[in-house]
Amino acid sequence: MTDVAALMSDMGRRARAAADALRATSPQARTDALTRLASGLRAAEAEILAANARDIENARASGLSDALIDRLALTPARVEGMAVAVETIAAQPDPVGAEMARWTPANGLDIARVRTPIGVLGVIYESRPNVTADAAALCLRSGNAAVLRCGSDCLESSRAIAAVIAQTVAEAGLPADAVQLVPVADREAVGAILSGLDGAIDLIIPRGGKSLVARVQSEAKAPVLGHLEGLCHTYLDAAADLDVARRVTLNAKMRRVSVCGATETLLVDRAAAARLLPPVAADLIAAGCELRGDAEARALVPSMIEAAEADWTSEYLAPVLSVRIVDGVSGAVDHIRRYGSGHTEAIITTDAQAAQRFADGVDSAIVLINTSTQFADGGEFGFGGEIGISTSKLHARGPVGAEQLTTYKYLVRGQGQTRP
Amino acid sequence: MTDVAALMSDMGRRARAAADALRATSPQARTDALTRLASGLRAAEAEILAANARDIENARASGLSDALIDRLALTPARVEGMAVAVETIAAQPDPVGAEMARWTPANGLDIARVRTPIGVLGVIYESRPNVTADAAALCLRSGNAAVLRCGSDCLESSRAIAAVIAQTVAEAGLPADAVQLVPVADREAVGAILSGLDGAIDLIIPRGGKSLVARVQSEAKAPVLGHLEGLCHTYLDAAADLDVARRVTLNAKMRRVSVCGATETLLVDRAAAARLLPPVAADLIAAGCELRGDAEARALVPSMIEAAEADWTSEYLAPVLSVRIVDGVSGAVDHIRRYGSGHTEAIITTDAQAAQRFADGVDSAIVLINTSTQFADGGEFGFGGEIGISTSKLHARGPVGAEQLTTYKYLVRGQGQTRP
Repeated sequence: MTDVAALMSDMGRRARAAADALRATSPQARTDALTRLASGLRAAEAEILAANARDIENARASGLSDALIDRLALTPARVEGMAVAVETIAAQPDPVGAEMARWTPANGLDIARVRTPIGVLGVIYESRPNVTADAAALCLRSGNAAVLRCGSDCLESSRAIAAVIAQTVAEAGLPADAVQLVPVADREAVGAILSGLDGAIDLIIPRGGKSLVARVQSEAKAPVLGHLEGLCHTYLDAAADLDVARRVTLNAKMRRVSVCGATETLLVDRAAAARLLPPVAADLIAAGCELRGDAEARALVPSMIEAAEADWTSEYLAPVLSVRIVDGVSGAVDHIRRYGSGHTEAIITTDAQAAQRFADGVDSAIVLINTSTQFADGGEFGFGGEIGISTSKLHARGPVGAEQLTTYKYLVRGQGQTRP
Repeated sequence: MTDVAALMSDMGRRARAAADALRATSPQARTDALTRLASGLRAAEAEILAANARDIENARASGLSDALIDRLALTPARVEGMAVAVETIAAQPDPVGAEMARWTPANGLDIARVRTPIGVLGVIYESRPNVTADAAALCLRSGNAAVLRCGSDCLESSRAIAAVIAQTVAEAGLPADAVQLVPVADREAVGAILSGLDGAIDLIIPRGGKSLVARVQSEAKAPVLGHLEGLCHTYLDAAADLDVARRVTLNAKMRRVSVCGATETLLVDRAAAARLLPPVAADLIAAGCELRGDAEARALVPSMIEAAEADWTSEYLAPVLSVRIVDGVSGAVDHIRRYGSGHTEAIITTDAQAAQRFADGVDSAIVLINTSTQFADGGEFGFGGEIGISTSKLHARGPVGAEQLTTYKYLVRGQGQTRP
């Protein structure tokens, strides 16, 4: 029987020491570790797939649903995908040490704001084995030490991946404890991370469903960077181009319905609803989407189901869309302020002033003009990957890549100045 | 009798509405409000001083110490100082709407990261009336709404200042509730702000002593940006210039002993302690500073008191300095990692490599080379003012001016792109 409390406390101490040692490593060494990790994952394909087969066997035995088993399952293509993701992160510029600003105020001091790692990140995720490689790569790129806690269903797969990480980190000369995976399935380990491991954890990142993130946010004693949900809106303005409105709305809802950037509510300007809504709705219906509208929307598209109040607050993650007629930009902004989750909103319009009023009025992490909410993704933003999309307003907002996993310090160079 | 819970809840709702309305105001309007505020403070000098006299009378009656009464007392010169501070903040560039970055990834989207206000800030401070004007000015400059809670001892003075703020905000056409002062002394109001006012407060900023900040950090349900203490170190490297070491150390400790940037521990490289410490110590002793040293330091300066373990963790805020002999940069970094508070540390050296190793190894908000820790100040950094110095690693670190009171959103401009 493992003493989980002692194990976790020891992991915290080692992570803190690794974080201190990582500060002295070079960007080249971190890139080297990432490049080796990509190769190492390819070389260990057989071991990783064998471990994954054990996870799947256990999952079947404990009656996990087919959908969850699919999420857990690895294939040669998925292992290759992990390696490519790590290579993409390796190709990103190393953020550590970058000068964000440098200036000389009246006192003559040379002041630079320089990016630094945050320290130790605690990442808690569900049963997607690829997150083990992704999270490790983003933490290494940003110079942070990591304590990774995977869902218990993917522990065997994650241990196989963590073994590759440990080997490549050592080969590149980085601290051996730079990335540690919690090696046991006990739920007590999650509580230990949430407690902050005696101050060793600087930031907790939950990556997973709403209930996981909500638990982490309510129980954590250390700061948390997480997103609760993506209740995204697309607003069709009176000045929308019909062709853009049709293509973008269909993509925003139906490209993948299970991602946090999928549009969940369509808002349509009353002034052009008769022109815009029927063809947009026809495309969605043809693609298999269920529409739930208010009375005015249903008057234009009679096949719609009647929307209830709960529909404005539902992140369906399914081929269902709520539809509401609003009074122009201000009506759309009011609806989003009341019901939105601060994630991602789009306006479709040819009117630049309307676009600006929408962008100013909506207080969300991402505001898109004439394009699809499904672009809410660190990869699409050019970040080489993401550990999640933050709906917090503090520290980092929107996609969280390596740069967003840094903080800064001020480096002040003087020549013996004293303060008067 | 006031229903404090209802009052606070109403203030929260009005602050949220004001924050939404502030998003539609122009930088010019915010500058106009600040300029009017500076003039308004000068014009209301008589009313402000009369209100302050009532505060002082109450404070005397309740037996407040002379030191605390001095902190509370306003004079014509101090009112003028408030006006000048507001003018300095008015002259700062408005951070809202500034493009922090703009790029086009492979998908052809035009992505901009744009500064935005955080929303509603709850500022809790002690009995310094000038903070009412300072905090209001920094919140207005950054486009945030504010709920200000002053120490009960300065409530009359703060109400007089808040009346000027309300008038000038209205004259400039900003939302009337942009800056609200809690108008009652009940301690229940602090608890209400810490509860987050039903989600209306985005960020709580405690400005005051260690016990206030610690209470806020432990009880707050909303994010907190605060600094716990400034346990600052100055390290004299073997390669230090003696003249710089003498002038900078004396300034770092003795310029003002009560500020958070005052040096509390002097670390001296063993390799040059005999050369550096005696003259540096003589200057400090001559200036009235008590020295508490380890055995090696006392061997060089016999008049030193013996330092106890508690001296390495004491923020004296007094003319007292602990002194320790260490093994070069790595010894200094080890000591600071173990005992420091992550605020500000300085190295005195002519060796650029030693300076770089110190800067890389020390994980503090501000690292200074060959200059005084007393420069840890937003005004000295050119921020026009500060609401405090953050020792948190997340969101903002070091001096917190108007720019640090912002967040960002992504503004993505497309031409009908859909995601493949």
